[in-house]
Amino acid sequence: MKNQIVIILVVLLLNGGFCSAQSQSKIIEDFKPSTLNQPGKEYPQVNSQGYARFRIEAPAAQSVSVSLGLGGKGGTILTKAEDGSWMGTTDGPLDEGFHYYHLTVDSGTFNDPGALNFYGSVRWESGIEIPAHDQDFYSLKDVPHGKIEQILFPSKSTNTSRRAFVYIPPGYDNDQAKNYPVLYLQHGWGEDETAWSNQGHANLVMDNLIAEGKTKPFIIVMTYGMTNEVRWGHLNEFKIEDFQTVLVEELIPYIDANFRTIADQSHRAMAGLSMGGMETRMITLNKPEVFSHYALLSGGVYKPVDNIDRSKVKLIFLSCGSRENPDGVKNAVVSLKEAGYNAVSYVSENTAHEFLTWRRSLHELAPLLFKD
Amino acid sequence: MKNQIVIILVVLLLNGGFCSAQSQSKIIEDFKPSTLNQPGKEYPQVNSQGYARFRIEAPAAQSVSVSLGLGGKGGTILTKAEDGSWMGTTDGPLDEGFHYYHLTVDSGTFNDPGALNFYGSVRWESGIEIPAHDQDFYSLKDVPHGKIEQILFPSKSTNTSRRAFVYIPPGYDNDQAKNYPVLYLQHGWGEDETAWSNQGHANLVMDNLIAEGKTKPFIIVMTYGMTNEVRWGHLNEFKIEDFQTVLVEELIPYIDANFRTIADQSHRAMAGLSMGGMETRMITLNKPEVFSHYALLSGGVYKPVDNIDRSKVKLIFLSCGSRENPDGVKNAVVSLKEAGYNAVSYVSENTAHEFLTWRRSLHELAPLLFKD
Repeated sequence: MKNQIVIILVVLLLNGGFCSAQSQSKIIEDFKPSTLNQPGKEYPQVNSQGYARFRIEAPAAQSVSVSLGLGGKGGTILTKAEDGSWMGTTDGPLDEGFHYYHLTVDSGTFNDPGALNFYGSVRWESGIEIPAHDQDFYSLKDVPHGKIEQILFPSKSTNTSRRAFVYIPPGYDNDQAKNYPVLYLQHGWGEDETAWSNQGHANLVMDNLIAEGKTKPFIIVMTYGMTNEVRWGHLNEFKIEDFQTVLVEELIPYIDANFRTIADQSHRAMAGLSMGGMETRMITLNKPEVFSHYALLSGGVYKPVDNIDRSKVKLIFLSCGSRENPDGVKNAVVSLKEAGYNAVSYVSENTAHEFLTWRRSLHELAPLLFKD
Repeated sequence: MKNQIVIILVVLLLNGGFCSAQSQSKIIEDFKPSTLNQPGKEYPQVNSQGYARFRIEAPAAQSVSVSLGLGGKGGTILTKAEDGSWMGTTDGPLDEGFHYYHLTVDSGTFNDPGALNFYGSVRWESGIEIPAHDQDFYSLKDVPHGKIEQILFPSKSTNTSRRAFVYIPPGYDNDQAKNYPVLYLQHGWGEDETAWSNQGHANLVMDNLIAEGKTKPFIIVMTYGMTNEVRWGHLNEFKIEDFQTVLVEELIPYIDANFRTIADQSHRAMAGLSMGGMETRMITLNKPEVFSHYALLSGGVYKPVDNIDRSKVKLIFLSCGSRENPDGVKNAVVSLKEAGYNAVSYVSENTAHEFLTWRRSLHELAPLLFKD
């Protein structure tokens, strides 16, 4: 277990989300505002090669840098332009997809006033989007759209009302006789229950898959999984019991009482990214009578010796980015299959421990869920 | 019309949200983290008198200030402490309730890394909450909670899917035979469809009122009302037609098709704060066959000469803060009543053009809606 956590940490530390294999080439001057900018903001910008360019107004500052840039160089140092603004371009293309970042202005940590904010690293960080060649599958298209509902569910164990977001597939309101399976989907360390919608576009991934007839419609429930305060680097001190109680004894009964679910083990899945994968693994092994489909996205692996209840598990899905630990994921799936489990691996090409890996993983996972 | 806009502007400019009548008194050292801080953040803090204290880490900065502080002094200038952080306290108590603010760090505009962000002034700003003596009515309590649904509705006129948030009262899913009236509720200039939930706590105001049996349950729909780009100070150039088309021809039919509404004029209300009040006034006068209950919150007034369709209007509600233009609101309601309208005024004590005025206004308005 500890080894698994260490692997996650090492993989994450080695991958800053940057395509370090590519050498610096001539920068094409076709920069456009990032799609994650605040309304009307011109910067940050992204070009067709995946370079990011930043512009910060702080005429009296002594130094401004951006946390994004090629690994080991401490990000991108901006230089002062004639108009008093600070500008700079990453010294290489970034991976396609979503990246968190922040500014350092005269030794202080701030967000980019041009960018939208996303909860990661236990704070609201700036976000930038490098258009992916396969972005169509999570784009906002003219298809029937599901809803995302914010619910507040009572939690006796933590003595408060807790928040969750619930994705409801299109068509849910049209047939009151139809009930749906449910996927419980967890965020990573330092993130919260907003991550899968905001950074992951889980709703758009599902809307598009459903419109193409590629997946059965199902409900997705996303709630906050850090009921213990866990510092980064101390995940091995994580205790699952508190969150397991919230999820299994409080949230699931609330969802089954308030939504038209198929409220049995065979129609209930759990998945999570990074730390959420670790939580998924712990809870599904502890509670085989609750979930039948398990998925770890950049969140370690199951092994046949893990005492997985053979009679109850219908699917084990393991994924990661090609710049993480793809062999670990693939080998684990080979072992699981040899041991008779229905196991599937997926490796996201040219991505690391980052959201494009997880958007793609959800896109691969959804069609495999609740097939009978 | 132009005069009305000028009044709104003047009132807003004269009121920075500060209780300028109070002289500086001894500051009580009982500061606590603001309830709107990011998880685990100690600053900004607020004391029992309503003073706010800020702490920013930027050891190499030359100057750091905060936009909140007594009027005319340019906010609060922070001073460098021995540990390299910048600290400062407002030179007077702030009004109770919610305030937007930002930092100026070496001439650059940034948000406070300790605070949550809220969309206002056409950007995501930092927010701070001064606990109000009457905060119980918008607090998260152990009562049945409604849901907030994020929907994406098709808009041919703007050629995109547009976002709205829909408050669904508790109990909605329990009786499929019950239909509900609808309030269309608009944000102010520079804000967006997130404002009434995030800054306004509209869902909690409603949950609490419904739990106490003080209002009929109804649906609230909140969408983005700035379909034209309007610069502040140029509201008189605002054209209502674009948003009116989105609201009346696209959103309302979508809501009536996808939620269990009572889809007629007498069960449909429109309200808005500030610019949203101006929009409400324009659209309700243009479309008396669509709405029956009208409310302007710090958003100007109706007068009997405005050609309000006497046969169709069931309620006109006008409100503002006591530090805005209370006489204007009260006098308008007297005139409307003399002319035979069911008009109600509400003045929020000791508040200005700010969210506590609007939380309280919604709390007063809701019980008056859809009474028959």
